[in-house]
Amino acid sequence: MSVLPDPVEALIEEFTRLPGVGRKTAQRLVFHLLKAGEGATGRLADVLEQVEREVGFCPRCRNLSEKGKLCKICADPRRSEKVLCVVETPTDVLAIERSGGFGGRYHVLGGSINPLEGIGPEDLSIEELLDRIREGEVEELILANNPTLDGDTTSLYIARLVKPHGVQVSRLARGIPMGGDLEFADEHTISRALEARTRVDL
Amino acid sequence: MSVLPDPVEALIEEFTRLPGVGRKTAQRLVFHLLKAGEGATGRLADVLEQVEREVGFCPRCRNLSEKGKLCKICADPRRSEKVLCVVETPTDVLAIERSGGFGGRYHVLGGSINPLEGIGPEDLSIEELLDRIREGEVEELILANNPTLDGDTTSLYIARLVKPHGVQVSRLARGIPMGGDLEFADEHTISRALEARTRVDL
Repeated sequence: MSVLPDPVEALIEEFTRLPGVGRKTAQRLVFHLLKAGEGATGRLADVLEQVEREVGFCPRCRNLSEKGKLCKICADPRRSEKVLCVVETPTDVLAIERSGGFGGRYHVLGGSINPLEGIGPEDLSIEELLDRIREGEVEELILANNPTLDGDTTSLYIARLVKPHGVQVSRLARGIPMGGDLEFADEHTISRALEARTRVDL
Repeated sequence: MSVLPDPVEALIEEFTRLPGVGRKTAQRLVFHLLKAGEGATGRLADVLEQVEREVGFCPRCRNLSEKGKLCKICADPRRSEKVLCVVETPTDVLAIERSGGFGGRYHVLGGSINPLEGIGPEDLSIEELLDRIREGEVEELILANNPTLDGDTTSLYIARLVKPHGVQVSRLARGIPMGGDLEFADEHTISRALEARTRVDL
């Protein structure tokens, strides 16, 4: 039996559910909150509740947004609707935004097709993507699905659906990562990089 | 400017305050909560609030307890009040409990004397400790302060205060940690271990 008060034990338990947080880390986090004072525990509770209450998905692109509102990217008039980048998750949006190399808008699928896990096209926001394309503004679709079997399946599925609409479809280049070491690249990446080799013009 | 909804950004910020949690980890934790669904965010908020509302310090030993109640150890009639173990923090109580080698009760000081940081004896629960000793039940005081300069100062201070009360005072042995490698032990630990060497009787 633990010698800790039950609510403390429950909080440690709850932290343990977070990814990469074991019993010892959870305990350290909880003791930090208890020691921090100045209502650190209550403040974290408040922010969590605000997220639970106010955060939802953008009705247009399915990215994270304040409930019922367009996300910051869909609401930004400087972003072009002509180029649409299709990603699996909101985290992928962040990753591409960090690169600073994209000025268009996004469409978040919410995952990828995976028959073994029972995830079919109808579980993703593909119908909403087609609606956006039917509006006629989109000129290019960049498929930024993960370079996995599921991601490739989903890309191909979408590419076929979109074809009749006359939209240009592209996808992210695959190859050796920048700063990566050839020695540690796996064979699939290397063979892709060979196939897609680009000419060096001097 | 972040493309995330403000409450999500605020939650990431709040997680970043936790020890060992950088921006990337905080982001991963928040996205996990958002993805986990089934009200994971709300549940964590509830448990945190419960802790904020219900957890305080034991009026007797200053260990963590439900507000206004004795902690589980002080409330346990099987624990002996004859041996009192003095520690700096509630985490230390947990550490000693884990060893399973102690059947007495605790007294949590709440830190150690540190003049540079302006922490004097009056900031610790030393008066409360003396009150417990004056009650006459305590026969031995085990000083389990950390083996640091501050910890040693505090130990010595308490030992002197307690002396007139005729209570036996001891402290944790210092030496090479179990499973530790002599090669990596620091010189202070080794010289302590040499001084406090114990006889091997065959």
